[in-house]
Amino acid sequence: MAQSAPFFAPRGDRHAVEEGDRLMPRFDAAGLLTAVAVDAHDGAILMVAHMNEEALRRTLETGTAWYWSRSRNELWHKGETSGQIQSVREMRVDCDQDCLLLVVDVAGDGGCCHTGRRSCFYRRVDMGPAGASLRAVD
Amino acid sequence: MAQSAPFFAPRGDRHAVEEGDRLMPRFDAAGLLTAVAVDAHDGAILMVAHMNEEALRRTLETGTAWYWSRSRNELWHKGETSGQIQSVREMRVDCDQDCLLLVVDVAGDGGCCHTGRRSCFYRRVDMGPAGASLRAVD
Repeated sequence: MAQSAPFFAPRGDRHAVEEGDRLMPRFDAAGLLTAVAVDAHDGAILMVAHMNEEALRRTLETGTAWYWSRSRNELWHKGETSGQIQSVREMRVDCDQDCLLLVVDVAGDGGCCHTGRRSCFYRRVDMGPAGASLRAVD
Repeated sequence: MAQSAPFFAPRGDRHAVEEGDRLMPRFDAAGLLTAVAVDAHDGAILMVAHMNEEALRRTLETGTAWYWSRSRNELWHKGETSGQIQSVREMRVDCDQDCLLLVVDVAGDGGCCHTGRRSCFYRRVDMGPAGASLRAVD
């Protein structure tokens, strides 16, 4: 019987990882990759989260972003309850294949942060005489 | 004797972390934060790397990006040998303070990837009948 094609290739040598045309992700000791989600409309960085193998497989299969929630310790279909589904317009992988970049269209109200903001990066860090302080932006 | 002000505040409660004006980073089990570097000129995502407490402190002190190299297991002043020094124009922190966004001006040839490309994200991932394949972009 024919088997379905594998989603990922086994990890290859450095040349295959950096210059090859096969996805051979490096999951860390906790079985996770880092994923950065960027808004397709304006390039704004929305969030940084993690994927395990199953989340990456489901993301590739469905075209919508799945993550692994480290706080809840479970697979997480982003937007399933909030409506903020992330449709992946483009996925990129970095040189050593331990990080993904997702260029996404966000459904619902277009946001992503659990605090209600559009992006998780809503504060800037500045150094002052009393150490580093945060200030809201956007 | 007066002590110098601390760079980071002790980790506070959820409200302090998400809504407060103090930097109280959450380092992971390996003592690391994720850091995303973006080009100040066009918003291109250049790289994703990690910082330990010392790398973050030096970044705040010097205004240039320091990372922790997980492969070499050492502090890494980005660009020290390549000339690709990253001057931090703006630093942002995410909601739960376990990820930083650095908006940088890159010296030298303006690149960042050890393969010689400007960005580490030089391949896109596409699903096809033989699984996920990679294709060079840019």
